[in-house]
Amino acid sequence: MNNFTFNIPTDIRFGKDQIQCLPDELAKYGKRVLLVYGGGSIKRSGLYHKIMELLKDFEVFELSGIEPNPKLSSVEKGTEICKKEDIQVILAVGGGSTIDASKHIAASACYDGKPWDLVMDRSLVKKALPITVVLTICATGSEMNSGAVISNEETHEKLEINTPHLYPKLSICDPTYLYTLPAKQTAAGSVDILSHVMEQYFQPNDEAYITDVLSEGVMKTVIKYARKAIDEPENYEARSNLMWASTVGLNHLLTVGKGGSWSVHPIEHVVSAYYDITHGVGLAILTPAWMEYVLSEDTAPRFARFAREVFGVNEADDMKAAKLGIDKVREFNKSLGMPASLSEAGVPDDKFDEMASEAVRTSGLGTRSYVKLKDEDVKKILIMCK
Amino acid sequence: MNNFTFNIPTDIRFGKDQIQCLPDELAKYGKRVLLVYGGGSIKRSGLYHKIMELLKDFEVFELSGIEPNPKLSSVEKGTEICKKEDIQVILAVGGGSTIDASKHIAASACYDGKPWDLVMDRSLVKKALPITVVLTICATGSEMNSGAVISNEETHEKLEINTPHLYPKLSICDPTYLYTLPAKQTAAGSVDILSHVMEQYFQPNDEAYITDVLSEGVMKTVIKYARKAIDEPENYEARSNLMWASTVGLNHLLTVGKGGSWSVHPIEHVVSAYYDITHGVGLAILTPAWMEYVLSEDTAPRFARFAREVFGVNEADDMKAAKLGIDKVREFNKSLGMPASLSEAGVPDDKFDEMASEAVRTSGLGTRSYVKLKDEDVKKILIMCK
Repeated sequence: MNNFTFNIPTDIRFGKDQIQCLPDELAKYGKRVLLVYGGGSIKRSGLYHKIMELLKDFEVFELSGIEPNPKLSSVEKGTEICKKEDIQVILAVGGGSTIDASKHIAASACYDGKPWDLVMDRSLVKKALPITVVLTICATGSEMNSGAVISNEETHEKLEINTPHLYPKLSICDPTYLYTLPAKQTAAGSVDILSHVMEQYFQPNDEAYITDVLSEGVMKTVIKYARKAIDEPENYEARSNLMWASTVGLNHLLTVGKGGSWSVHPIEHVVSAYYDITHGVGLAILTPAWMEYVLSEDTAPRFARFAREVFGVNEADDMKAAKLGIDKVREFNKSLGMPASLSEAGVPDDKFDEMASEAVRTSGLGTRSYVKLKDEDVKKILIMCK
Repeated sequence: MNNFTFNIPTDIRFGKDQIQCLPDELAKYGKRVLLVYGGGSIKRSGLYHKIMELLKDFEVFELSGIEPNPKLSSVEKGTEICKKEDIQVILAVGGGSTIDASKHIAASACYDGKPWDLVMDRSLVKKALPITVVLTICATGSEMNSGAVISNEETHEKLEINTPHLYPKLSICDPTYLYTLPAKQTAAGSVDILSHVMEQYFQPNDEAYITDVLSEGVMKTVIKYARKAIDEPENYEARSNLMWASTVGLNHLLTVGKGGSWSVHPIEHVVSAYYDITHGVGLAILTPAWMEYVLSEDTAPRFARFAREVFGVNEADDMKAAKLGIDKVREFNKSLGMPASLSEAGVPDDKFDEMASEAVRTSGLGTRSYVKLKDEDVKKILIMCK
């Protein structure tokens, strides 16, 4: 087991009506709040109205319209408001995109240069405004980690900024806020959770057994409840299990003792940076292709363990079990209504060379991932997904 | 899933040589340190010498001789040193007993009355000295939680004090410090970890699926590595997995969404308060008897799930599977060399009435446990263990 540190300062308030604590908690930081959110869904659901009522004694400024793959231009807008209006605390209401944009804004508000500088060099982040969250989409785990992924629309780069300054101070996770989430977003979010755990699970280190069994537990949870949450949007058991799975899935617990670099996310980030497709859709298409591509005598035992422990595959031969596990992943994605190819998702095949080299250039794919991949390997995986 | 909050401030440094951070970390709080430890094992292992060298620029006061079931009199001694010497930070080097005594000392040092008052009424704890830990026994999880169990030798009470002020600021968990742990302590610690998880797992709430599967993962880890750590004391994989299992086993992660009160610990606490036996030994004897006593048509499905998921029992009938699971727990305890009866552990049967009513009086056994137990039920369980 590799050495690690584990220290997550985020205060999670999980369950029905936890939002009542909002005024007291925000007041710890000040009365000047930047409310960040995406489209109109929080207005339609009544959540916006509820928050404004709770914050009637606060001075609330607003940044709406955060995109599904949050853009640098939104971060720049938010940063300007923070500086001009002397914002004391940021309240992100939404899912990963809104939270990630809010994190980047929180850091940029305390920095004199351009926001993108901080993505290029995280050591420039010396502090950040306090970030608080009301979670309405479960997928990225951003509510309890220190990472944020931002898309630079000019350079086609979709990159992560990650520093301990970006941990939310408080995240309110009320599963009933997921009741109005459309089936497509529930599906994409579930695929994203599963992928996060798989990225941490498929690593060369086999000695962190406890981390592996905890990962298997979270993956089983996603598989048990994803379809149920689509079929019964107001099923509290399904929504609450998925919501906590998303948080635990990427709050560092499932990485400890393992380490290594991710494989499918870096490829997907390039695809969605070029074509702005939903992150979970990209992952659903790429994951089984990546599994097939890296499956070998060396990797078969871990893929077989995944198949047996997560999907209950009953097959003694490792290679056969591994292949059955890949089938199971495809079936799971299909059961959620996910497209099976890039063309179905509207991604053409004319920039695969460029995208493949960009994926390798901006990640640890070639140096620290489970199976090291070069430009031509990534291109082959993209072709498998055509 | 029940509502919950999750917010653990403890900074865990896990792995080889993490102790190097000690001077920098302690210096955050001051230079006047109370070093708390048990017997001479840390002197024999060289750890005491290493710590004193690292802290050569600090003023270190010492409280040694903390007992396996830490006594109020030790807490009183430590509190006196803290007040007299103006201690700024406590460094606990040991396992649960040393950490628990240190926590109680940390709170008592900031309180004007008697230390036992704080156990009787935790709301009296308004602050505590900063607590830091170097872990040398993995069992109680005290390194990452806010609880402490103290024995009052005059009243025969062994009770818990639990408030957020008692979270350690820092815990250094280096699995190589377990290499010199005697087999008996490795065994007792492993039983303790398993019992903690079972206490949280056997609760009426079935909707927190994710918490249950995470619990199963931790229990499988203990079963996989406990005997191995005894047979190969310097097996890093075994020691590191057990060490992290003990921390995760009782840092709140496996309780979230479930709740309820514990069953076997309150009974064991009375037994060890009366007869000062090793906590893990008491748990090993009492747990299978408790399982048998509360097994019924109602509880069989959960006991069966436990048997199948944790011990791999392959039996479709719930009641049969449940019974096989109880056998497995007995076999596991036996494989670690644990005694199977109270008489083997030197506990006579003449105070069962008194002990049973004390267990019910000082716990949630009669009101909030998995299967509610009255005085006569606890007595019957004790008789089953004679």
